[in-house]
Amino acid sequence: MSMTISDLHAFLKDAFPQVADDFAIEDMTQDTMRVRLRVTDKHLRPGGTVSGPSIFALADVGLYLMILSRLGPVALAVTTNCSVDFMRKPKAATDLIADTRLLKLGRVLAVGDVLIRSEGDEKPVARASLTYSIPPNG
Amino acid sequence: MSMTISDLHAFLKDAFPQVADDFAIEDMTQDTMRVRLRVTDKHLRPGGTVSGPSIFALADVGLYLMILSRLGPVALAVTTNCSVDFMRKPKAATDLIADTRLLKLGRVLAVGDVLIRSEGDEKPVARASLTYSIPPNG
Amino acid sequence: MSMTISDLHAFLKDAFPQVADDFAIEDMTQDTMRVRLRVTDKHLRPGGTVSGPSIFALADVGLYLMILSRLGPVALAVTTNCSVDFMRKPKAATDLIADTRLLKLGRVLAVGDVLIRSEGDEKPVARASLTYSIPPNG
Amino acid sequence: MSMTISDLHAFLKDAFPQVADDFAIEDMTQDTMRVRLRVTDKHLRPGGTVSGPSIFALADVGLYLMILSRLGPVALAVTTNCSVDFMRKPKAATDLIADTRLLKLGRVLAVGDVLIRSEGDEKPVARASLTYSIPPNG
Repeated sequence: MSMTISDLHAFLKDAFPQVADDFAIEDMTQDTMRVRLRVTDKHLRPGGTVSGPSIFALADVGLYLMILSRLGPVALAVTTNCSVDFMRKPKAATDLIADTRLLKLGRVLAVGDVLIRSEGDEKPVARASLTYSIPPNG
Repeated sequence: MSMTISDLHAFLKDAFPQVADDFAIEDMTQDTMRVRLRVTDKHLRPGGTVSGPSIFALADVGLYLMILSRLGPVALAVTTNCSVDFMRKPKAATDLIADTRLLKLGRVLAVGDVLIRSEGDEKPVARASLTYSIPPNG
Repeated sequence: MSMTISDLHAFLKDAFPQVADDFAIEDMTQDTMRVRLRVTDKHLRPGGTVSGPSIFALADVGLYLMILSRLGPVALAVTTNCSVDFMRKPKAATDLIADTRLLKLGRVLAVGDVLIRSEGDEKPVARASLTYSIPPNG
Repeated sequence: MSMTISDLHAFLKDAFPQVADDFAIEDMTQDTMRVRLRVTDKHLRPGGTVSGPSIFALADVGLYLMILSRLGPVALAVTTNCSVDFMRKPKAATDLIADTRLLKLGRVLAVGDVLIRSEGDEKPVARASLTYSIPPNG
């Protein structure tokens, strides 16, 4: 791996200061990463449900960081496709936990998927798959 | 149609006060709707690009309002799937225009798609398709 | 455009002899193409419904031919993603008509979507979006 | 579980006689199922690659059987969405192995995903996610 969890947190803070504090990498292996969305008011819909765009953002950031950890901070992977199945209502005002898998890291495309659940609950809230385009000399 | 553009704007303000001002319905027919995302700082990534979650939100709100216009405000359609292709970088700090099509409005599922472009540009920034589950007595 | 409808039919016959007779291009513009699936027994499920894999094949061949018409026969575009919404039951033992749109033809990726209906019916049976990877010097 | 592997094979033979011999369930747990596609000439493209529609069919049949095993043979689940990422070229003329996961079995919708690889190879050829609509009294 080209970047550690600390490297990735520092990169997030530098490149995406508005949202860096929302995310925390909790665990990382060669092919998987666990990322937490620290749920605050801005992520909630009336009634306390975490919003769809927040779930989308968690899936996207999770796999983006995973690709970064392998390619290093020079890489500027660009999301080209994201497909999300929303399966259950998230628990009210509870952090979300995303488990990401990198399924392919090719020369021009990277593909992975993400399973998202509310902390303290095993049943998945959402499932997402994403594709990233990797620029040449990325 | 069960709701006019004014009805839908009032509904948005009431049900989603945090985001209602971000969206404006510009046109509506039996099967299509044009919705504007008023892009402000909170929608931007460093460099001025509109963020992925903002594009997702526009697609989702656009089709949600379209379904609402047909079923009336009682209906609580729930997004079950959203697939987005990100095709081009949006213009910096420019409103996005979403053209939505309702392809199916069934008893339990509604399906539609959305083409999104930067205002003043014809080439699509993103394409999305979404499915909604419609609760009984919705 | 690099290839005419006749060119494309000849290419299909040469490159995919097992399935070439199943498909007929009916119309082609700069950004759209209409392709017919000549439905025969092998495409049917018990009860006379056109099978899911046949609908998938029509969407994939339709956009593949559309990309080919623009890049010429040297290009070997490879399908990397296909997302299909199945919306209505096709009419029994009736040809399917696919209307394809090319939304992006980039240097490394092409993206388009397809609306499929039974001949003689306006309501769509299925909607698909597809991404293709275009090899260098393709 | 409502149906055993033998029950499911008998159901396939009865309901889908044209394709039943193409598929073999190799393993089944509460939430997962492994299904083999016995690759023969009809599944191949020139060059010996397994075709996209055959990969689609394997993903769809795999999750369909998994849902059936839980609901019993009365249930007529209907595929409403299928999204496939094609990641690597399958090995020439080699059986495909699909590992399916059932992520949600609700009252009206079931959702799952599938990882497909060539026998004897660990790297996935394709990843698919599917949604099924479950009719009332299914």
